[in-house]
Amino acid sequence: MTAGGNFDLERITTLLEGLEETIIFKLIDRAQFRHNPVVYLPGRSGFTGAARQSLFSLRLRFQEEMDARFGRFCVAEERPFCSRLPRPRRKVHLPPTGLCIEDINAVNLSAKIMPAYLGLVPLICRKGDDANYGSSVEHDVYALQAIARRIHYGALYVAESKFLRDKRLYTRLMRTKDAGGLLALLTRPDIEDRIVERIRAKVCSTQARVNRTSRHLVDPDVVLGFYRDCIIPLTKEGEVKYLLNRTPDPL
Amino acid sequence: MTAGGNFDLERITTLLEGLEETIIFKLIDRAQFRHNPVVYLPGRSGFTGAARQSLFSLRLRFQEEMDARFGRFCVAEERPFCSRLPRPRRKVHLPPTGLCIEDINAVNLSAKIMPAYLGLVPLICRKGDDANYGSSVEHDVYALQAIARRIHYGALYVAESKFLRDKRLYTRLMRTKDAGGLLALLTRPDIEDRIVERIRAKVCSTQARVNRTSRHLVDPDVVLGFYRDCIIPLTKEGEVKYLLNRTPDPL
Repeated sequence: MTAGGNFDLERITTLLEGLEETIIFKLIDRAQFRHNPVVYLPGRSGFTGAARQSLFSLRLRFQEEMDARFGRFCVAEERPFCSRLPRPRRKVHLPPTGLCIEDINAVNLSAKIMPAYLGLVPLICRKGDDANYGSSVEHDVYALQAIARRIHYGALYVAESKFLRDKRLYTRLMRTKDAGGLLALLTRPDIEDRIVERIRAKVCSTQARVNRTSRHLVDPDVVLGFYRDCIIPLTKEGEVKYLLNRTPDPL
Repeated sequence: MTAGGNFDLERITTLLEGLEETIIFKLIDRAQFRHNPVVYLPGRSGFTGAARQSLFSLRLRFQEEMDARFGRFCVAEERPFCSRLPRPRRKVHLPPTGLCIEDINAVNLSAKIMPAYLGLVPLICRKGDDANYGSSVEHDVYALQAIARRIHYGALYVAESKFLRDKRLYTRLMRTKDAGGLLALLTRPDIEDRIVERIRAKVCSTQARVNRTSRHLVDPDVVLGFYRDCIIPLTKEGEVKYLLNRTPDPL
């Protein structure tokens, strides 16, 4: 298969749809622990040799260092939250993506995903402290990674796919660096509505058979709101970034 | 609250029920990648400095080393798969469990959980190789940890709870090291049937809204079978181990 097959828009949207389950699962898993705000406080990790970090930021760094050694960030849509990560210790053999961008980190939305996610945590978790600090930050990291993968995959592949469909129109806006024009061209409110309604339905069905005395339920509207106000806008912001950094086609 | 509250059987069973969702989520996440049998082959990791291991065993060791530093294995029901793990780098403050056992690792079923899980992978994943090796082993480790937590939590707390309910009867069997008698006493076929039927229903509802072109579905009967043939028997085996290693009450 040539890399061109990567940009079939229907294929991309079904892949993005598949990532929704993973995000929902991770959020529900995190919500089984209380907010535990102390895990986000710098200097309160209790970790020897890490006086200034929070337990959350330490866990994220340890995880991404491990992941970097296993080659996670060789994958285009896996953009890290931390900088200065170690080099991979294994050879990762990946087919060419077909993406046309020199520095993939020009499309790294992690710095915006992080505060959005941290604002979501108290909306899905019960208030307070249950002392499950290790589990809380472990699930924070998994949820963050799933959200970031969804956003970056969408940003990169949807943008290239739409560009290929309508090169002339996009190229004109890209030449003039018209970010607003690109954003308008990329926006499809009908599709966005369909996505968020599907999210609500999935959160409901995923929790349909749950025993409410042992599991804390996540409010479907909260996840819907997070998709509408964070995941979708950040994906589009990434699409614009991709297009503004796209290597021009040879004349 | 005294540790005695930890042994309310109803509380334990609702907690165990809550862990079912986590196991189901992790198995579905793993099943989104093909079997990728090469990741389980020693010497095929492609990892520098690890000529004899598999990618899977490397990932499990890296994960457990990180988890050990964060104090995961200070928790009674978190029993590791690897040996010679580093000491925790943070102080973990946990309330007393009330469990009466000197060496918690006397109830470590990991060596039996591992082959059972590796036998499950080809039943939930599509055959073949999709080159997503890093993701496959990442999700293997999360699934294994969720399964091990369920088994060890059940083994430790159900056993102590049942012992406290009927001290005299259990003590007699424990004194004579009557493993068969203990197993018979611990076994409740009606409850086991209820658990596996609930598992089937949960796997179905969790996947109810899934787009089948983007997600690979896990057969509910396969997960049911894994619960019936692995999780439940290993939990009971752990309960017997706990009772045979229980510190005798002072006379």
